[in-house]
Amino acid sequence: MARRSTSARARRARGSSHSRPTRAVAGGVTSPRGFRAASAEAGIKPGSRRPDLALVLSDAPAVVAGMFTTNRVQAAPVVWSRRIVARRGAVRAVLLNSGNANACTGPSGDRATRASAGAVARLLGVHAAEILVASTGVIGVPFPVERLLGALPALVGGLGSGRSAARGAARAILTTDTVLKERAARARVAGRDYTIGGVAKGAGMIHPDMATMLAVVTTDAPLGRAQARRLLRAAVDRTFNALTVDGDTSTNDCVLFLANGLAGGRIPPGSAAEHVLAQALESVCARLAEAIAADGEGARKLLIVRVEGARSDRDARHIARTVAASMLVKTAVHGGDPNWGRVLAAAGRAGVRIDPGVLDLWIGGALVARGGAAHPPGERAAARHLRGRRIVLDLCVGNGPGRAVGLGSDLSADYVRINAHYRS
Amino acid sequence: MARRSTSARARRARGSSHSRPTRAVAGGVTSPRGFRAASAEAGIKPGSRRPDLALVLSDAPAVVAGMFTTNRVQAAPVVWSRRIVARRGAVRAVLLNSGNANACTGPSGDRATRASAGAVARLLGVHAAEILVASTGVIGVPFPVERLLGALPALVGGLGSGRSAARGAARAILTTDTVLKERAARARVAGRDYTIGGVAKGAGMIHPDMATMLAVVTTDAPLGRAQARRLLRAAVDRTFNALTVDGDTSTNDCVLFLANGLAGGRIPPGSAAEHVLAQALESVCARLAEAIAADGEGARKLLIVRVEGARSDRDARHIARTVAASMLVKTAVHGGDPNWGRVLAAAGRAGVRIDPGVLDLWIGGALVARGGAAHPPGERAAARHLRGRRIVLDLCVGNGPGRAVGLGSDLSADYVRINAHYRS
Repeated sequence: MARRSTSARARRARGSSHSRPTRAVAGGVTSPRGFRAASAEAGIKPGSRRPDLALVLSDAPAVVAGMFTTNRVQAAPVVWSRRIVARRGAVRAVLLNSGNANACTGPSGDRATRASAGAVARLLGVHAAEILVASTGVIGVPFPVERLLGALPALVGGLGSGRSAARGAARAILTTDTVLKERAARARVAGRDYTIGGVAKGAGMIHPDMATMLAVVTTDAPLGRAQARRLLRAAVDRTFNALTVDGDTSTNDCVLFLANGLAGGRIPPGSAAEHVLAQALESVCARLAEAIAADGEGARKLLIVRVEGARSDRDARHIARTVAASMLVKTAVHGGDPNWGRVLAAAGRAGVRIDPGVLDLWIGGALVARGGAAHPPGERAAARHLRGRRIVLDLCVGNGPGRAVGLGSDLSADYVRINAHYRS
Repeated sequence: MARRSTSARARRARGSSHSRPTRAVAGGVTSPRGFRAASAEAGIKPGSRRPDLALVLSDAPAVVAGMFTTNRVQAAPVVWSRRIVARRGAVRAVLLNSGNANACTGPSGDRATRASAGAVARLLGVHAAEILVASTGVIGVPFPVERLLGALPALVGGLGSGRSAARGAARAILTTDTVLKERAARARVAGRDYTIGGVAKGAGMIHPDMATMLAVVTTDAPLGRAQARRLLRAAVDRTFNALTVDGDTSTNDCVLFLANGLAGGRIPPGSAAEHVLAQALESVCARLAEAIAADGEGARKLLIVRVEGARSDRDARHIARTVAASMLVKTAVHGGDPNWGRVLAAAGRAGVRIDPGVLDLWIGGALVARGGAAHPPGERAAARHLRGRRIVLDLCVGNGPGRAVGLGSDLSADYVRINAHYRS
């Protein structure tokens, strides 16, 4: 037990630092060389005069990778983009809209996506199969494709490479989000700078049920197709996937990754250079995922659940996400109550074989439960930590090698007050 | 498709009627012959002067059956009662308390449960292993066993067989519940009346994460041990288990069933008499489960999700419960929005293989989606149905034999308004 505790403490002391060659920078999808963005008001969001259409363009063909919802019911743009990612090595652009998810819309939904991609491709002088499409918004309402098509000339005409172009695109894809979400990072490899930029939408409060999660990540690094996929999968597993309990995804969730290579150089698979780039990619994805987790009507705190000592990473993931998604844990975090029993109870229902008698829990680095029972000396420090905005729970569930992170937020709504204060 | 639709329509027309020999009656756990109940204020709920202790006693040894939480972290009273149910054929009483769940309390929690059962047994002049224990309340706080022990003489002294004794016990086990929950039914078999009575606690709004579910069901029918277990399992699978997504249970959930045989006669396994009794048992459990689903701060509507055409009952259960637990569906029901797309999307993420292209959905009997796409003629009638208090969704997912019911409620909280009105 001592060894485990020490290891957990050491990890907490280290924090989530990234190694030096990568650093966070201000920016978004247009930060890497050769990427432009644009936004427009197409009127897809009914009765509003808000931007609802966005385009991200690579000046050169970009190697593409993508990860998509595991929901059996998949929106037309997911079907379209998944097929392109599976079949093609490179693409030129991503068309995104909010206001209508184009999900459960039958064959006319498929036609709308095809027509949208085709129209963008004609305006850009490329092939329709080089255009990815992503949509978010209401489900089951016929997609107003004519409105989208009408706005495309202005959209393409407005393409720019500056920060404001990226911000406009970030704003156009929001639905229930309360803040726009873009992040960037730079990786320095062999005297050469590579930039990674990303944009996302998604509100985390009762994620993933309440809202679709979309993200587009761009880079000017030169990556092969298999390499881009491998790097994206690893980064998403540790970041965006920390937001969800397995399989509990919307009809439209997707993360798209475009690498156009315009920064030059080489990044051989398995090299140290690739490792540095992977860290930068994970940093962008992690900060976007945390922004999603923290967003939501009434949410005030980001909840980070780190699990270690599980039999496998998979087991650890189930536990971390079940704890991070638990209403009881979220209300306790909101109420500032170091209610470790709720954390253990959530871990117990994660569908994973664990021994309740060996569970250790730290809240903000303070040990509050040891061997499945109270460790009262830690409660005061834990309560202090819970008054902050970034809440970290470390749960050790045994001696196994499995570890994972889950992301969530507190629950501050009126209707759960009764439960947040139920203990007092 | 036509045949399936007709069958679903026929079932909707039939409603949920039970066959004639059973009928609902007013009452609770003391309605069957030979059962008494009591309640007391032990001070386990801190700082309140509310009853928090209850006892249900059978005057004769009662055959016992029980179903318990699947959570890996199990409260001390669950461990105690589960062992008794597994080993003994008959018991005499159930001791219940609110205010403290006696979960995550280590060895001292086990001692507290054993001491409680022992003290009740001494006062009643029976064996400790004839006393079941069930607790609900805060997790991880040492159990105030001295307070419980101090209140036992008054509790046992207050035992009564009337309606008010049963109601007192029903009130004493409430935590976040807003209404007390007791139901009864009578079955007439071969000129003989058998009564079934039940009491439950649990708040359904964001069930099961928000609250423990406890239930005690009593009957004066003569049942064998294996028979009682079989009947209880069948009833719970179709009722209380409709409240939860598999495995997503609290540390304390349990349903206990006591049959003392004091009404005489015989109910042979597999007989028509047993079938009638099973219907009465299911009716009591179903009405208690519906009361739990409908309860909760701000909840206004009961949501009943019936799924048919799945490959198996198990698949149907996963779908029904995922839909009934979906925040998006619950907010749409609250907003009166016949947003069938959300229902299909929830079905799609249930972890069950389904074909989105064959999904049919009725809201209050009005067909709103056919073959996975909109069926606009039904929307008006569906919107009318959604203005009521008892919302019924019928989802047909294919040609298979599997069917199941899921129970839930609407979500009416302020913080989800943004999402309930997101469509408009």
